[in-house]
Amino acid sequence: MALGLHLLAELQGCRCTPVLLEQAPALEAACAGLVQAAGLQQVAAAFHQFQPAGATGTLVLAESHIAIHTWPEHGLITLDVFVCHYAADNTARAEHLLAALISQFAPAWHHVQRIERGRGLQFSAPVTLPDPR
Amino acid sequence: MALGLHLLAELQGCRCTPVLLEQAPALEAACAGLVQAAGLQQVAAAFHQFQPAGATGTLVLAESHIAIHTWPEHGLITLDVFVCHYAADNTARAEHLLAALISQFAPAWHHVQRIERGRGLQFSAPVTLPDPR
Repeated sequence: MALGLHLLAELQGCRCTPVLLEQAPALEAACAGLVQAAGLQQVAAAFHQFQPAGATGTLVLAESHIAIHTWPEHGLITLDVFVCHYAADNTARAEHLLAALISQFAPAWHHVQRIERGRGLQFSAPVTLPDPR
Repeated sequence: MALGLHLLAELQGCRCTPVLLEQAPALEAACAGLVQAAGLQQVAAAFHQFQPAGATGTLVLAESHIAIHTWPEHGLITLDVFVCHYAADNTARAEHLLAALISQFAPAWHHVQRIERGRGLQFSAPVTLPDPR
């Protein structure tokens, strides 16, 4: 077991409605809805609007975070879904959310990397602190 | 060349001042200062305070984002530094920032994974959209 699971994706040739890639409020609303539908808990958000179009932002979750950056002039998006397994194994929720996000943006091509975070570490184990030298 | 570089780190046995792991405002201020010192541009922030102690948050950057989650009861931190190479190659800035963050938290142990995002994709190339079938 690891501390958490981090899904990293790049999407190209996105065929969704252009406003999702262009306007931060639309992007944030879409992401927030999919987070809730996946059974994850949003606790904060930060989005930024680029000019003339393009958006970037994060939703901070009780379970860790998602992050999304768009380049509408290239039809490109990067997506991050990171969940820690603190109170439960959140693997299924993370995979569900990533699939829903990819479906929302309808890319012609995408690539996903799955990275275990903190393999060999676990929340339930007591932490042995080193000598304070 | 890739779209960007994502550095993922786990830190254990952090020997920094406890307030950095426990309190969101202190954590955010420390991260914001190191982002600025690394020559990266913060455009938004979202942090959340856990009770009784623990913090989680993100700084959205013009160059992409950083994210940090702390578990003070276990002396654990996860760190993400993700920079895209849109206007410049930001590899050196990302590595400088990660090293500064690790130094700030003074872990007894840490592990870093370096992930290229969007290998084979580039911002300057025209995007060929598929047939709209």
